[in-house]
Amino acid sequence: MELLSTNVCFDGEHRRYRHHSATLECDMEFAVFLPPGAVAQNPLKAPVLYWLSGLTCTDQNFMQKAGAMKHAAKLGLAIVCPDTSPRGLNLPGEDDSYDFGTGAGFYINATEQPWAPHYRMYDYVVKELPQLVEDQLPVTDQRSVSGHSMGGHGALIAALKNPGRYASVSAFAPIANPSECPWGQKAFTGYLGGDTKAWEEWDATLLIPTARERLPLLVDQGTADEFLDSQLNPDALAEVCETFHHHINLRMHRGYDHSYFFIASFIDDHLDHHAQALGLR
Amino acid sequence: MELLSTNVCFDGEHRRYRHHSATLECDMEFAVFLPPGAVAQNPLKAPVLYWLSGLTCTDQNFMQKAGAMKHAAKLGLAIVCPDTSPRGLNLPGEDDSYDFGTGAGFYINATEQPWAPHYRMYDYVVKELPQLVEDQLPVTDQRSVSGHSMGGHGALIAALKNPGRYASVSAFAPIANPSECPWGQKAFTGYLGGDTKAWEEWDATLLIPTARERLPLLVDQGTADEFLDSQLNPDALAEVCETFHHHINLRMHRGYDHSYFFIASFIDDHLDHHAQALGLR
Repeated sequence: MELLSTNVCFDGEHRRYRHHSATLECDMEFAVFLPPGAVAQNPLKAPVLYWLSGLTCTDQNFMQKAGAMKHAAKLGLAIVCPDTSPRGLNLPGEDDSYDFGTGAGFYINATEQPWAPHYRMYDYVVKELPQLVEDQLPVTDQRSVSGHSMGGHGALIAALKNPGRYASVSAFAPIANPSECPWGQKAFTGYLGGDTKAWEEWDATLLIPTARERLPLLVDQGTADEFLDSQLNPDALAEVCETFHHHINLRMHRGYDHSYFFIASFIDDHLDHHAQALGLR
Repeated sequence: MELLSTNVCFDGEHRRYRHHSATLECDMEFAVFLPPGAVAQNPLKAPVLYWLSGLTCTDQNFMQKAGAMKHAAKLGLAIVCPDTSPRGLNLPGEDDSYDFGTGAGFYINATEQPWAPHYRMYDYVVKELPQLVEDQLPVTDQRSVSGHSMGGHGALIAALKNPGRYASVSAFAPIANPSECPWGQKAFTGYLGGDTKAWEEWDATLLIPTARERLPLLVDQGTADEFLDSQLNPDALAEVCETFHHHINLRMHRGYDHSYFFIASFIDDHLDHHAQALGLR
């Protein structure tokens, strides 16, 4: 694991690392925020919020734009931001569109060629990256997960598929039912093939009925989000949660859009949600 | 004035505008944050913090990366971010380097050709833009000014040269004595010519002895700033302030660098400083 840069921030540290991912068979970069206690002379290990970003993002969008570090520093919460796909593999078509291939790994394990050996972002963010971070940085194995849009989808399925692995989960404007929207259908067809049966284990709305752990879902959504009607469909998730008595707190925010200005406005509520589950407050 | 975009943010609004600047003889874009009260049904006009950005920045760096809006919303403070130079004029050499021409207007009025008719960022940020904003947006004529690096220099000279115009001033890692550093010498030679006498009215350290208004200076500086030794020289400013009994609060922050992670870490202190002077708290 190679340290690329360090910025002191709110008396903690924002760091960027590069490492070779065995899961993805390529080099990956990620960012971490360590709260003040974790970088003190006698470091106190911090629990980690894993943040999964949306289409086209890298590890940097959240770190630079969400304004999360002030409150995370106060809470004693670390934040880890992975990239959103493998990069630079030179697979045919990987850079043809913003919503498939580079920057669009969708946090699933591809089964179709040529994506299958590399596009395994689910295994990477759920298993390999936490293992690496917990081995090499001053953090605990207490984990929470959140994300935005494609990353909100990623956070929800990561939690729903792994009982006991996360203390809490939340999402901003998640692609809540990817099997039923253009972004999800394009990605699932490309990575998983045309048999929609294979899509079911990667769709939060379809995972709710059989979820073995009933972590409450905190979901924030702007009413002026330009992708709300065509891509996100939080109502489908809310309905299935109601049917199966899975607690969801879906907060609709009047006038807010899909941007990081929306995320910044409510990130502290999410940090509090995770901090409480992690025993930080 | 053309509205380019609006994002609801902390129940206020981040907006971007384009307008024709008579001072600069070109179209310019700027950003504004309006706190919740200023966008309410019965709007309450807000005082304005003018934020001047550093080399290479646009109106967007501060708005996206400083994490200032949460506290500004609470305080009832508007923030206006101009661009850092005219753009797209096709002047010979305007895009040759990051520290001169495009993105590097230095908040002075050029006298040398071909820059003179357009590169008048001082008049633009001190006079034309506030006039426009006060005429057309729900803000008052109470003003404060702050900035970073080249923009910290801009904020200091704007306040020092205009007694009564600003309620308060502050700066992050300002180019405190531009006549004596490579960035400043390159810019002043190019925009003002080789006679250093003409530089004196654009250098905060050289303006202190004759300042007619003794607004206290709040200056934050990171000790790990990669430009501290070669370009910034806050000590020169602190020394002349001491000699001439001009109050300065120069805060040296151990380990912090020149990035927006540094600005984000201390911006709320600056907002409080300005809010107090503006009667908001």
